[in-house]
Formats: sequence, C-alpha cells, structure tokens
Amino acid sequence: MTFLDIIDKKSKGLSLTEKEIDFFVREYLNENIPDYQASSFLMAIKIKGFNDNELISYSKSLINSGEVFDLNEDLVDKHSSGGVGDKTTIVLLPILSSMGLKIFKMSGRGLGFTGGTIDKLESINGFDTKLTLPKVKKMVEEIGVSITSQTPKLVPADGKIYSLRDITATVDSLELIAASIISKKIATGAKNILIDLKVGTGAFVNNIKDAKELARLMKLIANDFNRNLFVLFSNMDQPLGKSVGNKNEVSEAVNFLKGEWSDDLYELIKKISIELYSKSKGTSKSKAEEIFNNVISSGDALKKQKEWFSKQGVKDYEEDTKFNPKFKEEKTSDESGFVKFNIVKNIGNCLIDLNAGRKKINDKLDFNSGINFFVKNGDKIFKGDKLFEVYSSNKISKEIIDKISNEILITNKKRKSKIILGELGW
Amino acid sequence: MTFLDIIDKKSKGLSLTEKEIDFFVREYLNENIPDYQASSFLMAIKIKGFNDNELISYSKSLINSGEVFDLNEDLVDKHSSGGVGDKTTIVLLPILSSMGLKIFKMSGRGLGFTGGTIDKLESINGFDTKLTLPKVKKMVEEIGVSITSQTPKLVPADGKIYSLRDITATVDSLELIAASIISKKIATGAKNILIDLKVGTGAFVNNIKDAKELARLMKLIANDFNRNLFVLFSNMDQPLGKSVGNKNEVSEAVNFLKGEWSDDLYELIKKISIELYSKSKGTSKSKAEEIFNNVISSGDALKKQKEWFSKQGVKDYEEDTKFNPKFKEEKTSDESGFVKFNIVKNIGNCLIDLNAGRKKINDKLDFNSGINFFVKNGDKIFKGDKLFEVYSSNKISKEIIDKISNEILITNKKRKSKIILGELGW
Repeated sequence: MTFLDIIDKKSKGLSLTEKEIDFFVREYLNENIPDYQASSFLMAIKIKGFNDNELISYSKSLINSGEVFDLNEDLVDKHSSGGVGDKTTIVLLPILSSMGLKIFKMSGRGLGFTGGTIDKLESINGFDTKLTLPKVKKMVEEIGVSITSQTPKLVPADGKIYSLRDITATVDSLELIAASIISKKIATGAKNILIDLKVGTGAFVNNIKDAKELARLMKLIANDFNRNLFVLFSNMDQPLGKSVGNKNEVSEAVNFLKGEWSDDLYELIKKISIELYSKSKGTSKSKAEEIFNNVISSGDALKKQKEWFSKQGVKDYEEDTKFNPKFKEEKTSDESGFVKFNIVKNIGNCLIDLNAGRKKINDKLDFNSGINFFVKNGDKIFKGDKLFEVYSSNKISKEIIDKISNEILITNKKRKSKIILGELGW
Repeated sequence: MTFLDIIDKKSKGLSLTEKEIDFFVREYLNENIPDYQASSFLMAIKIKGFNDNELISYSKSLINSGEVFDLNEDLVDKHSSGGVGDKTTIVLLPILSSMGLKIFKMSGRGLGFTGGTIDKLESINGFDTKLTLPKVKKMVEEIGVSITSQTPKLVPADGKIYSLRDITATVDSLELIAASIISKKIATGAKNILIDLKVGTGAFVNNIKDAKELARLMKLIANDFNRNLFVLFSNMDQPLGKSVGNKNEVSEAVNFLKGEWSDDLYELIKKISIELYSKSKGTSKSKAEEIFNNVISSGDALKKQKEWFSKQGVKDYEEDTKFNPKFKEEKTSDESGFVKFNIVKNIGNCLIDLNAGRKKINDKLDFNSGINFFVKNGDKIFKGDKLFEVYSSNKISKEIIDKISNEILITNKKRKSKIILGELGW
C-alpha cells in the first residue's frame, strides 16, 4: 500500500490502521512525503474525520516523533485554547508553584487574533524564553516552575504538520486540534492537565457543542496515556481581564499578584488553581481554596513570580515589567447605556494593526502597544465615561480607535457575562 | 477573500462563485498558488463535489487558460475513457475521414493499467506525434485527419492540475474527470463529440451508475458550450479486440482495415462511425451504415490510413507497422470449459511488467512487447487450446505468464460479453 492509497482510503471515509497513520507522521517528518500529498491527506482528515482509534494512533505517533520530558515527579499543566487578553499563565504559574505544585510549560507565540504567552513574556526586558530541556529540568526542580517556547525536540511532527495546516485551510478539525494540544502536554510530562477551553466570539471555538466534542476527544487521548484531564469551558465574549497586548498584559499580571485584579480573571485563576491543587494533592476543594487565598494574601505568589522571572533572566522586576508606551489615546463613550462587547476576535485583529499581534509567524511586535479596557459586559456607563485607552510606539490613528469602538456596543439591556460556562471533570 | 477562504468554503461543502473558481485555475497556472494549497483544494472538491454551475465555471476557466483550435469547419471527435487493448482510434480515424468527416485528435500517453494511443502510434517507425497546430490545421484541411500529442497551448491548466491530481489521490472525482475530458474536446474545436466510456474491470469506471453520472456531467458541459455529445457505454470486462500492447495493437489495427477483425472491436467501431456520421451529415443511420461498409470493403479506409501515416512521417507502411518481437512464449489451457476474463486491470498491469505500459510518466516503453489473446469471454475451449502469446525484446519469465493466466478463468458456464452496454444519445 502506497501513501496515495492511504490518502484515497481516508478520502472515502474509511478507517486507517495504526500503521498507516504512523507511516504518514513518520515519513512526513522525515521529508519522504511531499507537502502537496500531506495537505491532500490533511484535507481528507478535516472533512472525513478520525474515529477514536485513529485519533489515539495519531496522537501516539506525534508523541513518538520526539523526546518525552520526564522529571520523575508529577507535573501539572494548564493550556488555553487561545483568546484575547489571556494572561492567565503569567499569573497562574507562580500561584501554582507557591502552592507547592510543579509546572513546566511549553508555550506558543501569538498568531492571527490570539496572543501568545511567549510574546508577552518576551516583552519583559531580559526574559529568556529559549531554555534547553536540562535547564528547564533544573529550574522546575529548584523553584517548581519553568516556561519555554516550543522546542523541536518535543513532538516535532506536530510542529511540521501544524505549519502546513496553517497554510492549507486544514486547521479547524477537532481531531487534529485535540491531538496537537494533548500530544504536547503528554510530551512535556504533565500528569494532571487542565485545559482552559475558550468559547465565544474571541475564541477558535464559538459554540458549546463543538467545545464539548473537542473536550471529549482531548480527554480520550489523555486518558489513553494515563493522564488526568479536566476541561474548563470559559467565556470569551469579552476580553479577559483589562489589558490586551503584550507588556500591558504583563503589567496586569504583576498587579494581580499585588492584589489588584479584574473579577473575571480572578475567578478563572482561582477555579483552575483549586482544581489542579485538589486533584494533585488529593485534598478537598475547600482546603485548596484556603491555600490559594493564602499564597496570594501572604505575597508568596508575588515573591514566586519575582523568583521565576529572575531565574529566566530578568534583572530588575519592577523596572523590566513596567509598561511605558510612547503614545496614548483614550476613548470615552458617546452615549449612556449598558456595555456589550460585539465580536471579540475583531479586537484581536485590531492588535495586529497596532503591531501587538501577528499576521504572519515572522512579524516583529511592538511590545509597547496594546489596549486597556475600562468597561466589562453589563456595566452601566454614562456619556463621557472612559471606555478604553490605546497605546503604541507610533502615532495612533483615528481609524484604529473607531475600529475598536465598533466592537463595544452600548445597549439598553444589562447583560453580565459569567466567566465559567461549564466543565468536563477529571 | 483569500485562497485559504476559498479552500475552506469548499471544504465545508459550500458552492463557489465563477470568480473564485477562475481565481484558482488562473493563479495555479501562473504559479501564484503553491501545489500544497492546490492539492488541499482538489481534495475538498473530490470529497464535496461541484454542483452543475461550479462545473461549468471550472470547465470555462480550463478552456480559457489556453488557445482554442478553430478550423472554420465542423470537426468530429471521439474520446475513450481508457481501457486495455483499446486501438479504436487507429482504426476509426481513417474510416471517419474516408467517410468524409474531418477529425483532429489530441491524444495522451498510457499510464498505469491503460495504454495510450500516442504510444501505440510512436511504435510505428517514423510516426511524428508532435505536430504544431498550423501543421495539424493543414493536414486536416488536406486529408481530413490528424493526430498529435497534448500540446501545452491548449487547456494548459488542465495539464498542470492533472499532474498534481495524479500524485495526490484526487483523480477519481467525476466532476474533475468530466471537466478535464470535455474542456480538451472543446478546445480542439470538435462540434460533434462521441465519448466511448469504458465500464468494467479494465476501466476507471466500473459501475454503470457512476458511468451514467459522468456521462450526464460531460453532456452538461458540452451542451453549455454549444457542442453535441453522445456517450457510448462500452464493456471493458475483457481486453478489446485481440492485442494488448503497442505495436501489436497497431498491427491489429492495420489488419482490421485489411478485413480481419475481432467482433467486439468491429461492432464498437461501426457503432461509433454510424453515430458520428449520421449526426454530422444529418443522414439516416442506415445510410451511414452503407457508407461505413463501403469505405471498408472498397479499401478506401485502408488507403486513408496509409495516407495519414505517411503524412505524419511513416516511410514504408508495411515495413514500419510490422510487429516483430525477439521473444515469444505461448500459453495453452490446462483444462476445458468456458473462458471468463477476471480482472482486466491486472492484465494492464502485466503490461507494465513487460515494459509495454508505464508506472511513471517518464518510463521508456518496449514497443515490441505485449500480449495477443486467442480467446474471448464465453468461448468454449479444450485442454491444450492456445490462450495467449506473450512477446518481448527480453526473455519472458514464467511469473509473468502465470500472472496473465490468473486473469483468465476457465468456468463451466458460458458467459458471452456484449460490447455495447448502453448510451446517452445526442
């Protein structure tokens, strides 16, 4: 059987064997299968799908394509499916490690409307996001936390396949998304994994039905590899927290640990922390909540964040995390009423216009650009109240302010958003 | 809208606009769309299909990608969808032109289990299959017949797209097949077109349902371009005629016009000739049959074949068409019973083993290899009767003889095959 027969089989909706799927992953990585055949195959998968057995075979092949990180200790991990204003990782990691959990995170860069944690951290002067695996290992052992950008040593096939999917309209396959996410979590050695699955106008998944199926697929893979998985469905119908950009989000994350937070971000981080802690340590949720409260009020989490940043190269915590844009414009409301964010994705796309987000993978970012919002869904505002501020290293155009304004509707109906929409438990 | 959006649209089963389809054809030909995006798109089309409007738009774009041949005269054309032992064109063309019709044929090479008329003609010493369009024009005007291999001047987009389909498992889409065939017929200027659609174990289409849908699609395109189309469903459950190969098929074609033929080939050629003649000249079928009989019995068709070959470079008709293989092996039957060909495609694949067929487009052929069969479906034979002879320029292995023998079953039930299975009339 040739690879053409395998493509043809999938295009007719037939199931592939473990051997056939592994052939694709291995030979594509080894460059024995050309891009034009791989993309034809990926389109057949996107349309015809994978059954559960195929999905597990595919995930296994991805994981086996590289090394697997092993710390001889139970690691936890948190993954966000991508949204607008998502600085969760930067706040959460020091909280989890000061609570006594160990976390090694491999993170990505922003692309399209979504930001990426690695970009945000790189906006901090001196922050090194390119750690070697031995360095990561040492850091996690010493201070319980470490983060690095994606290394080709782990799950290299996923990186190569994802790059092709991105330019062949084959990204939005639930099976391929599930395998891509979970294979990386497994390769980074996580035992207890929490997926923050964003749902809404600022997320890749915008309906709860798809979210539930994606969650089911992810759990299926994780469980097959003997990992515990929790999926939280969180709301992306408004930017998360207050800041959207890079360094302004870091600034928000630092302020959080100093005691200043948005309710939505706080609720999300608390929920994730409690779930991961109680599962990992086998405690009750109320015990976990007590410890969570304690590491924040005591300043332990803040101290841990400083230690973490310092270990990854940051010299002056206060100075190096300070957001200091050259230009700033503010926008106030022209009318009175209740706030309702419209299409949050479009705000993510405005970030691209401001060079705070990327259209293509190699675009350079302006770390001192971004948007801070002063309103949330359901807020009652009056004419003249401040809606948002825009920041940049360059002059800010009226067009971009209008474009952002278009996504904040002022309505006559109060509609609060709840941040947590549901869950698929451990 | 970017090309990625167009791919995505088709992958979700939505209809594309004329503009979107034309964008693909034009920009792929101009190399502004890379192969890996084109193949992803073609797979989406293979699985999700084209509706009738999309099919016509696509055919139009293919035709517009190159020149259109125009002789200011009504041409006829015949196209075979590909089979095993199909030398129809070599017999038919001189018959049609000696009957007074004008025919310009653009033909292909063999690939996989099917032979190609161009290869067969090239087995004749001196035969030039690479005529320029002005030369073709002159020949058709002077003697009423001309053939050439595919030129990139006509329908170049189809050539480029077909090459990609061939290596991405996206060949077997009825819409893409229909557009590919008919766009070429339209570009070569044919007014009355007869499609010999092979159905059976030695054809691309092996069930009458698919054949009927393919016929409907082809007629739809042809009629939209104001051409008349007739589809003949002909049987491919045994090799057509007696010889399978290249020069041995030429030899069979020459003998046909000298009065020696297999019944199945004769019936097929007569039917095609009558249909094309009566439609083109507006005569009754019985009148057409009379003229058909006449050009054969008078030797006019044989004379025309000589003239045709000579015009395309053949110096000595008898000598240059003679089949003269170095090695020959014969196979007789081990038992008595009734003949039933099994999987005719496999016989086509045996031809590849004998270097009379191609695995890859650049494979060189041994023109003096091939197989002649001495039995047809339903024939009553006895132990020791000759089944076939194998020819080659090299020693012939026992394996290849066994492989061919496997495809001739000796059964206890008489099953004759009829060559004509049905039609979709003008």
